[in-house]
Amino acid sequence: MSTHYHELEQRFRRMANLGGAAAVLQWDWAAVMPTGGAAARSAQLTELDLIQHECMADPKMADLFDTAEATRDDLEPWQNANLSEMRLRWRHANALPADLVEAFSKAASACEMVWREARPSSDFNAFCQAFAPLLVLIREKAEAKSAALGLAPYDALIDGYDPGFRTAEIDGIFADLGTFLPEFLAQVLEKQAREPAPLRPTGPFPVAHQRALSKTLMGHIGFDFDHGRLDESHHPFCGGVPEDVRITTRYDESDFASSVMAVLHETGHALYERGLPEDWRGQPVGEARSMSLHESQSLLMEMQACRSGEFFKFAAPLMQDAFDSLDSAAAAAAFAPENLHRMAVHVAPGFIRVDADEVTYPAHIMLRYRLEKAMISGDLQAQDLPDAWQQGMQEFLGLTPKNHAEGCLQDIHWAGGDIGYFPSYTLGALIAAQLFASASREIDGLPAALAEGAFAPLLAWLGKAVHSQASRYSSHELIERATGSPLSADAFKAHLKMRYLG
Amino acid sequence: MSTHYHELEQRFRRMANLGGAAAVLQWDWAAVMPTGGAAARSAQLTELDLIQHECMADPKMADLFDTAEATRDDLEPWQNANLSEMRLRWRHANALPADLVEAFSKAASACEMVWREARPSSDFNAFCQAFAPLLVLIREKAEAKSAALGLAPYDALIDGYDPGFRTAEIDGIFADLGTFLPEFLAQVLEKQAREPAPLRPTGPFPVAHQRALSKTLMGHIGFDFDHGRLDESHHPFCGGVPEDVRITTRYDESDFASSVMAVLHETGHALYERGLPEDWRGQPVGEARSMSLHESQSLLMEMQACRSGEFFKFAAPLMQDAFDSLDSAAAAAAFAPENLHRMAVHVAPGFIRVDADEVTYPAHIMLRYRLEKAMISGDLQAQDLPDAWQQGMQEFLGLTPKNHAEGCLQDIHWAGGDIGYFPSYTLGALIAAQLFASASREIDGLPAALAEGAFAPLLAWLGKAVHSQASRYSSHELIERATGSPLSADAFKAHLKMRYLG
Repeated sequence: MSTHYHELEQRFRRMANLGGAAAVLQWDWAAVMPTGGAAARSAQLTELDLIQHECMADPKMADLFDTAEATRDDLEPWQNANLSEMRLRWRHANALPADLVEAFSKAASACEMVWREARPSSDFNAFCQAFAPLLVLIREKAEAKSAALGLAPYDALIDGYDPGFRTAEIDGIFADLGTFLPEFLAQVLEKQAREPAPLRPTGPFPVAHQRALSKTLMGHIGFDFDHGRLDESHHPFCGGVPEDVRITTRYDESDFASSVMAVLHETGHALYERGLPEDWRGQPVGEARSMSLHESQSLLMEMQACRSGEFFKFAAPLMQDAFDSLDSAAAAAAFAPENLHRMAVHVAPGFIRVDADEVTYPAHIMLRYRLEKAMISGDLQAQDLPDAWQQGMQEFLGLTPKNHAEGCLQDIHWAGGDIGYFPSYTLGALIAAQLFASASREIDGLPAALAEGAFAPLLAWLGKAVHSQASRYSSHELIERATGSPLSADAFKAHLKMRYLG
Repeated sequence: MSTHYHELEQRFRRMANLGGAAAVLQWDWAAVMPTGGAAARSAQLTELDLIQHECMADPKMADLFDTAEATRDDLEPWQNANLSEMRLRWRHANALPADLVEAFSKAASACEMVWREARPSSDFNAFCQAFAPLLVLIREKAEAKSAALGLAPYDALIDGYDPGFRTAEIDGIFADLGTFLPEFLAQVLEKQAREPAPLRPTGPFPVAHQRALSKTLMGHIGFDFDHGRLDESHHPFCGGVPEDVRITTRYDESDFASSVMAVLHETGHALYERGLPEDWRGQPVGEARSMSLHESQSLLMEMQACRSGEFFKFAAPLMQDAFDSLDSAAAAAAFAPENLHRMAVHVAPGFIRVDADEVTYPAHIMLRYRLEKAMISGDLQAQDLPDAWQQGMQEFLGLTPKNHAEGCLQDIHWAGGDIGYFPSYTLGALIAAQLFASASREIDGLPAALAEGAFAPLLAWLGKAVHSQASRYSSHELIERATGSPLSADAFKAHLKMRYLG
């Protein structure tokens, strides 16, 4: 047995405990913290972050890795995979010189603060003053990671969120989608225009009833409230730790559906966390595989399973019961499963990514992907973002945003220094479709089960194929082992055709 | 300027950030965490604790202290006080050998777990099997601290909660109380027996209404909800950090008063935390002075200010309004200020410390203080606790508990390894009385202000005399500066005589 390997496990366990503490503190910030707690909380989180960085930067680490890797033959397969994951994280963490880490962190915090003011007022110039210097540092970060990891600069950034994904592959997948989607979207809109619009259930839908409905649905799907909570925050998210998963949503008393769908989405994330192998808690190999795999689990639950006609057969009566004060003929028609399903798969090109349906969502991502590549290569400067955005929105969706708030200022990612993350959303959608297609082939009567709210067979399949595998394999290996095929857009396209034109 | 001193400030700031993170995680555990999160949370808290211990145990610390102390003349008074506080904490932290720290921590966790089972079933033998070995370690801890601090063993334990308090002083104070209280209690009970019993308002008192009432009262007292929250937990407590104070209570729908009084008590703690000087956040000198001072702030608010006849003139109508469904002649009589006040100062000797009124509370503490001294000196062994308890309860309150659950198993303190803490409760009550007497002399029309719910003058006085002083002075200096006299039981006795026999 390699004592060096075990020493590494111990060090990574410390970092995981600190990361877990930080995750709960971040949930607290978003869900319950009073505004006046921000400065103290920020100091706590910075301290936890700093200690994790110090653990990674400890000069003894290089030797521990070298010695542990020299005795790989003594390790079990999961340990071997763990060692590789540790090494990759260590490479990422140590790729940047300390002064760049600090400068980047300050510039990103500053830009994010400016963005919070600049977005509502659609003030691109204010934003750009903070973003231009941040972009310089993002490029430096990309160069530094490129050198340390032997990857192209933008690939090196993507690798921080989605290890193993490269532009060479994503270019091909997005080209495929880019060819397919415009014509497909036109057909969907044409078909949709020929049909009567779905009836919108009219509220008010009291928050307490929405919350109870969401908890009921979460319970049916398999969320264990002894190991997690549902709360409220400005933006829905899934946080906490695998033993105690905290998901959030927001409520609008005039529209229950958007909150419920957000809950189903976050429940998909939560079940992934809950299904990670207990034996590898606190170790890199025991964590979720990647951002795209994580997104695949939320989108599989929300888009594949719960926006299906089958799901609404099960859920529509629960939804109507949740708002029993609405007992009228109009309510009965609006809450008919078929009507709610049509609402859930309504397609409408728009400016805002987070509001987009699954047909137009990839266009939002492909636009951002193109701009990110250009920003990192230096072909696109910060001040030229608005023009490039307008042009791209025209090309991808035929729309021209009225202002920057619904244009290039809509997302927090770039303001916070996150370039390289966006592709994960659409990769996640493709993985979700490919996994769900496999699950549907392999599980007898899956549609009938979903129509009865029986999620156990699907959850068992995902648990075996994805959740319990954690980071044992690369994303690509995991997908191929689970579905028998390498990742492609085929299943996603087939899903769209079946759902929207079938 | 001493760079060594500033290096120490930086190191203590890190520990404070970790301590603040832990405080929020502990609040989360008690108030919102699902049961399944316990193991992961425990690992996070242990990690944070361990890192703080490592900071304290860093061999460079001794040199930093020596050098900083050699240049004390360069420091401002607050810095000097800070340096002394740092040194004292460091002495406490390093007094114990690492193997004793670990053995103690394990034995205390184990004993606390046993206690949680043993108390409900009143199983002293089960408890004793875990407590006897823990007591051996507590004695070792006391000896080790004694050697490191140059104090008697029990004094060294007390010093960990209440720096500067010694048995020599406490013996005298408790002897004074012990002489006064039995005869006084008899007089109070006799007087009380001659009067009709107060009317109990009859519920139910819905939780939502109780919560709203508590928040209203907290707001009047000066609690700032931008910097804190009120939540629920099994036992009321005050946690979080000064910028974000989290207090909790519990609700009983058949009795609103106990929850409200707990909230007023915790609000006193919270206002102390909130009033600590911003300039010294994250430094030992900027923290609350001691456990007894902290308890003085909660008891001043609850016992001195809010169990007064004046307070009920203000609060009774709000209490009645909170439960407006109870609008009847009987409710009107029960919610009369005079009646609610009489309920709030009803005296009844009982077995349970946490349910005790302010007249009988000191007896519970004096009993525990006597037993703690005997346990640390070795005169009392673990297995002899029940007999000693029975004997003491007879002597102090003339009561014989029916079982150990309402006897020596009622408190968590000893089970968790905390010996030396109990005196703080009664010291806090005496300090509260002495401070409130001074405030009453110095603030024109304080009773009239309280009768109108105007707490600002009292809060300003406490802010200046106590909160803003943090740990700038010793407890004894602080009390004398604030009240003009050294600590004694005089003000407490005068308060009791005025309230109960006046």
